[in-house]
Amino acid sequence: MTTQEASRVEARLQQLHRKLPPLPEPGGHYVPAVRTGNLIFLSGAIGTAYENDRWHLPLKGKLGSDLTIEQGRESARLCVLNHLAALQPLIGNLDRVQRIVKLTGYVNAAPGFTKAPLVLDGASALLVSAFGQDIGSHARTAVYQHEMSFNAPIETDLIVAIAPD
Amino acid sequence: MTTQEASRVEARLQQLHRKLPPLPEPGGHYVPAVRTGNLIFLSGAIGTAYENDRWHLPLKGKLGSDLTIEQGRESARLCVLNHLAALQPLIGNLDRVQRIVKLTGYVNAAPGFTKAPLVLDGASALLVSAFGQDIGSHARTAVYQHEMSFNAPIETDLIVAIAPD
Amino acid sequence: MTTQEASRVEARLQQLHRKLPPLPEPGGHYVPAVRTGNLIFLSGAIGTAYENDRWHLPLKGKLGSDLTIEQGRESARLCVLNHLAALQPLIGNLDRVQRIVKLTGYVNAAPGFTKAPLVLDGASALLVSAFGQDIGSHARTAVYQHEMSFNAPIETDLIVAIAPD
Repeated sequence: MTTQEASRVEARLQQLHRKLPPLPEPGGHYVPAVRTGNLIFLSGAIGTAYENDRWHLPLKGKLGSDLTIEQGRESARLCVLNHLAALQPLIGNLDRVQRIVKLTGYVNAAPGFTKAPLVLDGASALLVSAFGQDIGSHARTAVYQHEMSFNAPIETDLIVAIAPD
Repeated sequence: MTTQEASRVEARLQQLHRKLPPLPEPGGHYVPAVRTGNLIFLSGAIGTAYENDRWHLPLKGKLGSDLTIEQGRESARLCVLNHLAALQPLIGNLDRVQRIVKLTGYVNAAPGFTKAPLVLDGASALLVSAFGQDIGSHARTAVYQHEMSFNAPIETDLIVAIAPD
Repeated sequence: MTTQEASRVEARLQQLHRKLPPLPEPGGHYVPAVRTGNLIFLSGAIGTAYENDRWHLPLKGKLGSDLTIEQGRESARLCVLNHLAALQPLIGNLDRVQRIVKLTGYVNAAPGFTKAPLVLDGASALLVSAFGQDIGSHARTAVYQHEMSFNAPIETDLIVAIAPD
């Protein structure tokens, strides 16, 4: 086939004016995602975006000092899009996702910031919007960091289950 | 059936003068636990307790400045009870747990505090007491945070395996 | 049998002038590794080494202040050796590993240090060298901590899949 199978998940993302970026390239001896049985473990994603033919990090800094909650939520949504960009080529069609299993969210927090769950809910809500409640609702853990790679505000980690072949 | 099946695990908890709280309600677009195959991934839990018809957080603050090791251990035990409260309705009976697989414990640490394993062992020991050595002994990772949601001292993350249906 | 089956993985480690330390003993109510189905979850490892009949921690302190990137990479490699020492007795032969699934690396970071991926790549590269690209390449997440047990520079967490019996 020369055309890609239509994906309901990507159609929903389009309705939300979101689209999948290209597959991010890991900068080291690791890969974007690993499948074992029906589980897929995705590498940590930060909120990079692909615009004008290049990757950049539109939001940088710590929650509680440099960024608003809403900016943090937007960065968390970009993390999700990067996860889905890593997942799509591995499984061919995002509609094969049976369940979003577990989201671990790491928030770059200034001293005294304790609202990571509010920030990470940007990622969670996008997953539920894209996959629907039954498939998209997931377990979650909110983690705080005092520093982050590239001074990103958010990093997320995802585990996904897919339907058997 | 109108009566719940007796649970050996809950009986052991009762001997330890512990009981399961009600199911904690997630404050966002996520759920307390997700089952995929025989694995259950539980959302992060903090040491809230349900007393006098309301949830509260009996212990707050950082290890190494605000709280003693033993207070941290008690908060870690409350995390475990909240995990089990999230697990029980999903599987019907805690005796269906085949193995406690992995506990990741996040400790809210003041600068210079490096004894997270001692604190988290409160959670580990309770899991072993409740489920017995064979089922309850688990892999563990101890993590440090400089801040925590609600200024909780401990957050834990749990993966559990259950017997096939 | 009185002789152990030859392991290609251990032979490759030997070529790299590395060998497996003895099984580290957990200091608490947990175990070095848990198998569930074909997945093995390993307890967090720090970069201890076994020399002259005793365990010690050859590298201590924070990246960005106390240690160079290369020292951090070496500590990350020692974490991997400790994981493999925990894995070997559980599965009998490291050649039974079907895939290194997920590495989560925690880096003890001084304020302003944001290069955890560079440090953790020491662990990733060793896994790829020991198991080969197909089996050894894994998903990875880089995490930052402001403190660490025993003032270790690195802690790692590993999930591995093994071939069915």
